[in-house]
Amino acid sequence: MSKKAILGHVFHAPVKGEFEHLVNACIEFDELGKISQVVTPDQHDYQSIVQKHQEQNTLTTLSDSQYLFPGLVDLHTHAPQWPQSGKGLDLPLFDWLNQYTFPLESKYKDADFRERFYPELVDTLIAHGTTTAMYFATIDNAASEYLAKVCKQKGQRALIGKVSMDEKSMCPDYYVEKSTEIALSDAEAFIQNIIAIDDKNGLVHPVVTPRFVPTCSTELLAGLGKLVQHYQCHVQTHASESDWARDFSHEKYQKTDVEIYHETQLLTRRTVLAHSIFLSESDKHTIKEVGAGIAHCPLSNMYFADAAFPLREAIDQDLHVGLGSDLSGGPIPSIFHACLDAVSHSRVREAGTNTHLMQNRGEPNTRVSFVEAFWMATHGGGLTLDLPIGVFQPGYLFDAIVVDTNAKHSQVRVYSDLDSPRDILEKIIVHTTEPAISSVWVNGNKVK
Amino acid sequence: MSKKAILGHVFHAPVKGEFEHLVNACIEFDELGKISQVVTPDQHDYQSIVQKHQEQNTLTTLSDSQYLFPGLVDLHTHAPQWPQSGKGLDLPLFDWLNQYTFPLESKYKDADFRERFYPELVDTLIAHGTTTAMYFATIDNAASEYLAKVCKQKGQRALIGKVSMDEKSMCPDYYVEKSTEIALSDAEAFIQNIIAIDDKNGLVHPVVTPRFVPTCSTELLAGLGKLVQHYQCHVQTHASESDWARDFSHEKYQKTDVEIYHETQLLTRRTVLAHSIFLSESDKHTIKEVGAGIAHCPLSNMYFADAAFPLREAIDQDLHVGLGSDLSGGPIPSIFHACLDAVSHSRVREAGTNTHLMQNRGEPNTRVSFVEAFWMATHGGGLTLDLPIGVFQPGYLFDAIVVDTNAKHSQVRVYSDLDSPRDILEKIIVHTTEPAISSVWVNGNKVK
Ligand SMILES: [Zn+2]
Ligand SMILES: [Zn+2]
Repeated sequence: MSKKAILGHVFHAPVKGEFEHLVNACIEFDELGKISQVVTPDQHDYQSIVQKHQEQNTLTTLSDSQYLFPGLVDLHTHAPQWPQSGKGLDLPLFDWLNQYTFPLESKYKDADFRERFYPELVDTLIAHGTTTAMYFATIDNAASEYLAKVCKQKGQRALIGKVSMDEKSMCPDYYVEKSTEIALSDAEAFIQNIIAIDDKNGLVHPVVTPRFVPTCSTELLAGLGKLVQHYQCHVQTHASESDWARDFSHEKYQKTDVEIYHETQLLTRRTVLAHSIFLSESDKHTIKEVGAGIAHCPLSNMYFADAAFPLREAIDQDLHVGLGSDLSGGPIPSIFHACLDAVSHSRVREAGTNTHLMQNRGEPNTRVSFVEAFWMATHGGGLTLDLPIGVFQPGYLFDAIVVDTNAKHSQVRVYSDLDSPRDILEKIIVHTTEPAISSVWVNGNKVK
Repeated sequence: MSKKAILGHVFHAPVKGEFEHLVNACIEFDELGKISQVVTPDQHDYQSIVQKHQEQNTLTTLSDSQYLFPGLVDLHTHAPQWPQSGKGLDLPLFDWLNQYTFPLESKYKDADFRERFYPELVDTLIAHGTTTAMYFATIDNAASEYLAKVCKQKGQRALIGKVSMDEKSMCPDYYVEKSTEIALSDAEAFIQNIIAIDDKNGLVHPVVTPRFVPTCSTELLAGLGKLVQHYQCHVQTHASESDWARDFSHEKYQKTDVEIYHETQLLTRRTVLAHSIFLSESDKHTIKEVGAGIAHCPLSNMYFADAAFPLREAIDQDLHVGLGSDLSGGPIPSIFHACLDAVSHSRVREAGTNTHLMQNRGEPNTRVSFVEAFWMATHGGGLTLDLPIGVFQPGYLFDAIVVDTNAKHSQVRVYSDLDSPRDILEKIIVHTTEPAISSVWVNGNKVK
């Protein structure tokens, strides 16, 4: 068994709200990518471990301008929407879906179309340091399985859902399941095929993916819940994203989205609810009890959600919460950028916006720090997915990125005489763009 | 007199709220950088003009992946704060000034320190497409004149202010003018020296720069006002940035900042007020009557301003308004990013944030579009500064950038079969990062 090791400056967040900065740490991992040890120069066996890997030629040594981070986790992204990212953001959600999104998603049934865009998307996310992505694909099985093959081939950890949507009154006739029965058999076939594609590598995972309550019949939700119980797979969906979505569920079921998903057995330890803007106290209690998670997508939240997700409260209540890009409702394919947006958005929420109000303008004490956002982007993401990723500890998988502040076109400027470790971490979160991410590993394999 | 010309696809915003897309336009400018004509293929003399420049070897032809834009205008940036951009954003404004900013600014009296950072900053802004920047420097004359020399040498159009701040009760003892008299004689010497440095090139301009009301004595404001009237130069300052700043002026003078600046003759057609969050209707009337301008700095606004600048209203009332990065209160040195932030922030303002409110959550109809933000970043910036820049028209100066969507590390993805001109413009605003800006011209001279 040949192990490898990386030696360099490390930032990670073992504890929520804090960060750990390790100088010249040595992280060793095995052939399967599992971390076997993390040692620092103050430990007695450090020298011997480093020396062993030097002699075996299994040591990668980073330079002083390079910083090692856990890979970034994107909990919510719509793979087929990639070509439209950055356009049409002025439309209301409903028009945006019908004018832009559904027509675009329906094109992926053509092999040429998906072969044009899915590889480009996966390359782009890896280049931005996203080692794990949870994807909504489309309703088309072949197209969604193709996405899994692309992720496996390029080495990205991916949780992929064929989208389930059968409610004919809420879907365009060119983009809807033929029937509830077909929707369920397609969903099951998809699960089995992804398991086969993964072939026990643990890299690609099937996800049961009801789009959101309005586009799913009651029978579809119930049937998908049974599949989840049978296959014990992940679930992703949208919850209470907007006033309209919340009101829809209330009118049709007199229930919240969380109640609906809970009753249909779709709410599990491995469920990721995107957005979840309007949660009742009871909803939060249920989510916490089940151990389900939330994908906070700050930029898309600003454009489509009608209000701000109460992130401060979710963190304080110890809900599982991480970050999502929500491509293309959020246009930027970077989880570092999502950190900046999460912090900025929380500050606007805290301060309020209305200059005509002299008091009670905002919601006091609701800001979130960069260090908390960084925890969400890494450790919080792994916790939400129930996967051993997001922190450098024995037993976790070596998914990692290097930010090289000296890389060509890097916008990160670190001045060792002026910047503390916390300053460096904040600057990297704020200023890292794609060219500064010089290396990416997933499962111990270098993929950029 | 040898003229030059550029041939390619052009986006600009001659009319606020609209954009113009010119296919294969030819823009001709003279040795001084002044645009002599803009012709398109439908015009009868187009062929002869293009052919003439081909024969004279004075034509630059862009490729189909390249788009020509007016250069970006940054109306508000603190040059000395560059080294701290991206850190300390969690502090309140007062602590941030005292713990981070004043100690940092005071270091620029050392030549080594300013030579380390000012060239890097100017290079960075040019690389991000900022052809014109309005800079706060420091209180030190030599350091601020050095910044002007750097801008001139690197070819950036710059409006530069030695900062005036003499109120000993509000400034740290290590960073304050020695007396009001010295403050005024230094401010006047600075104006004269910048005029000498510019040497009639029209590239660098002196700006009278009272930091903000709390740090300036009444006598200093009055004296600076006289200088402005004498030299007819630009003015920049902060106006009503936060609850604290607004209340300070009210307590000391029973006046608004705008009233104070107006009475001291500091409010002119060439005055740029940063932030201006809390303006009364009367303030706005005064600003409009005088023709003064506002630098909207959305990202810094989110962190430090306690409320959102009423941008929608300012645009609708035809105030002169453009965008500022506010380095380092805003950490990102890109005016394209400021466009994205301005739009996002306006959406949050419109929607509101408080999930506990079922109605009256936000401020309806206050969103701003990407096209409006683009106008602010270019044409609006030029209008605010009373300079002939920001649009491609005869008589304007050729300050321009090329966004090359095929450049290495470009994050802009344009699909000609899927994207309309408006889509392309929005994608470029949202996704342009530094590597995609392949060329920059100021005054007709290529500077990147
Ligand atoms: Zn979504
Ligand atoms: Zn400022």
